Amino acid sequence: MFVLLNLKAYACDPVEIAAAAADVADETGVRVAVAPQTAAIGRVAETGVETWAQHVSGVGSGSHTGSTLAEAVADAGATGTLLNHSERRRRLADIDAGIRAAERAGLETVVCANNPRQIAAAARLEPDAVAVEPPELIGTGTPVSKADPEIVTDSVAAAGDEVPVLCGAGISTGEDLLAAAELGAEGVLLASGVAKADDPRAALEALVEPL
Amino acid sequence: MFVLLNLKAYACDPVEIAAAAADVADETGVRVAVAPQTAAIGRVAETGVETWAQHVSGVGSGSHTGSTLAEAVADAGATGTLLNHSERRRRLADIDAGIRAAERAGLETVVCANNPRQIAAAARLEPDAVAVEPPELIGTGTPVSKADPEIVTDSVAAAGDEVPVLCGAGISTGEDLLAAAELGAEGVLLASGVAKADDPRAALEALVEPL
Amino acid sequence: MFVLLNLKAYACDPVEIAAAAADVADETGVRVAVAPQTAAIGRVAETGVETWAQHVSGVGSGSHTGSTLAEAVADAGATGTLLNHSERRRRLADIDAGIRAAERAGLETVVCANNPRQIAAAARLEPDAVAVEPPELIGTGTPVSKADPEIVTDSVAAAGDEVPVLCGAGISTGEDLLAAAELGAEGVLLASGVAKADDPRAALEALVEPL
Amino acid sequence: MFVLLNLKAYACDPVEIAAAAADVADETGVRVAVAPQTAAIGRVAETGVETWAQHVSGVGSGSHTGSTLAEAVADAGATGTLLNHSERRRRLADIDAGIRAAERAGLETVVCANNPRQIAAAARLEPDAVAVEPPELIGTGTPVSKADPEIVTDSVAAAGDEVPVLCGAGISTGEDLLAAAELGAEGVLLASGVAKADDPRAALEALVEPL
Repeated sequence: MFVLLNLKAYACDPVEIAAAAADVADETGVRVAVAPQTAAIGRVAETGVETWAQHVSGVGSGSHTGSTLAEAVADAGATGTLLNHSERRRRLADIDAGIRAAERAGLETVVCANNPRQIAAAARLEPDAVAVEPPELIGTGTPVSKADPEIVTDSVAAAGDEVPVLCGAGISTGEDLLAAAELGAEGVLLASGVAKADDPRAALEALVEPL
Repeated sequence: MFVLLNLKAYACDPVEIAAAAADVADETGVRVAVAPQTAAIGRVAETGVETWAQHVSGVGSGSHTGSTLAEAVADAGATGTLLNHSERRRRLADIDAGIRAAERAGLETVVCANNPRQIAAAARLEPDAVAVEPPELIGTGTPVSKADPEIVTDSVAAAGDEVPVLCGAGISTGEDLLAAAELGAEGVLLASGVAKADDPRAALEALVEPL
Repeated sequence: MFVLLNLKAYACDPVEIAAAAADVADETGVRVAVAPQTAAIGRVAETGVETWAQHVSGVGSGSHTGSTLAEAVADAGATGTLLNHSERRRRLADIDAGIRAAERAGLETVVCANNPRQIAAAARLEPDAVAVEPPELIGTGTPVSKADPEIVTDSVAAAGDEVPVLCGAGISTGEDLLAAAELGAEGVLLASGVAKADDPRAALEALVEPL
Repeated sequence: MFVLLNLKAYACDPVEIAAAAADVADETGVRVAVAPQTAAIGRVAETGVETWAQHVSGVGSGSHTGSTLAEAVADAGATGTLLNHSERRRRLADIDAGIRAAERAGLETVVCANNPRQIAAAARLEPDAVAVEPPELIGTGTPVSKADPEIVTDSVAAAGDEVPVLCGAGISTGEDLLAAAELGAEGVLLASGVAKADDPRAALEALVEPL
């Protein structure tokens, strides 16, 4: 299972969480990555944790003030990027362009989508993986694997054999993680459950413990 | 004069340019700042140069995946931010929110606009400064101070006494800089003229030499 | 007082409401306009009521599929347009372009904004009028003139002598209308209070009765 | 073959073109539809021609000022809608929502995309048809069927057996139409070739003559 921890724009210390995630990954062998604010990618990568961007633009180098150039996040230490998160939905053509930009910069891609139909569409754009996150469950504490298990199995079917599926929204315990795996997910997107925990390290350890 | 060097998404080495800018600022006493890609803010700030963001989101901390939180760029070492660059035009309400977000994070703000009428509007949102850049002159090598001097004087009048005006588009020589100052501008936005120069340090030195 | 009734995307009969509005305007001499969905502008205009668009694009004629060309809404019978409604916020440059496009097509303009600072900015773009609508009060039934009277008086001051101010959000009774007028507003934006009323004609009559 | 004539925001008389299209469809039995500006849908539909929208929003009825409600364009007489035209690219989630909104309103849907990969994605969202239009050929007069025939055959393969493919960009003659049909397209998107012709009726007649 791939555990991808999205720090969003939370008021948290990204370096402290990254260091904890690096330790947990080392100790357990579970693949754990952290996606901080773009400006923090460099400091997060220095902890040794696998570091992801939350978004990259579809542009190449040039006159694009305020863009997030894939090469720039790679230079800062990122090795992958989310695209089309429900808080950063993109145009179909720009998701396509973003995947291509990430490929050029050597970044792995996970394209998010809201439902199995959109997952089927996103998978056809040939990202490294897709992630299904029902927007209505994000931040609720009710795991998608419990609230709506069919959305996960349907997404796995919709993505096809060649595109792995992650799932997200409401996942915070090891039990949720196991449930996601049993439904066919090859990873999970986490956010507030760890990033806003009183003790993020303990939260991560508890999460991956059953694996 | 304030010289603000926007590195956009150019394929350049932001640290090398930042180091040169820091030296030129030290040697000449001219205020020079560098605005790199968000992911490079930390490394640029380490050179000691005044570091700006190219953009910040209008949001506060929270569930805003892919945003550019003002506090995050400030934590990385930025002390100011552009807003509403013509390559990153924002909604009126979001420029307002972006200025407020920057203020909360202790960032200085320069709001860009295309013409004196928009400059008048932008100045009413109470940024620290505004910058007029006619989009049709960006990247042309024809300086706004020569091609359209009235747009600068009209912008200075439109901004009012309390909001300083920078100008940009096509500025690359010391002569352009002096011309801008004579028209009432208190600074300039630079980009390709320095960032794409064979020798950025020499380009910067030549630029600030007449001051 | 100018009463501008925004039908949004409500499930209502725009022609029935327009006919009622035309009658009320005729009978009372109060200026009443109706802003329906773009596709209904022609049928609403045929009732004889003053007809407004909810939005126009900033473009001129050309290759702009899916745009709302100012000339096209004028041809259909509209004589004015809202711009930058809080449900259709636009970029600063596009509000400027939209006002210019409306002028070319002979449409009157009312630019909406959220607060006095944005009203000051919008007024500098030289529309025919501005409208302040605190987003948090839209659709609440609590009139802005009661919940936050200072936002109206501050907006009147911010707009300056040459740009009339309308106010909106939560206005549904004649008392609200009078209160708005006393605060310096020269008109009101209405929506659900009339459009969703069981008897829109009676709601309009009751509204303008005190004038 | 389905001939879908997109009038964009051209400075043309939509009713005159619609009347000509209605006649040509009657005389030849070829399916011809016209997609005018939203504000002109009612008058175009009155000519008896099959009438399409250029775009609908993904929303349902409610507080959506400035949206293009699918039900509103259907009430005005449209029976279908383009979605995601390259001049009106939409977010993946909003294309999905737009198709669902169109279905609820009884509108047929054609989702545009730039290349076979995006066509594969769009087809998975279950529209009635997809249309491939390479943006670089739009308005050039060089037909996609000649300039890049593989993009059409690849799109037909990518869409799968259940989703018909239209093609567009640069199509203006009967020969172009036949070439498109031979490549597997079940229709074409036309725009400037007819809408900007000196004699739109003659242009349409010449176009469908070989069928």
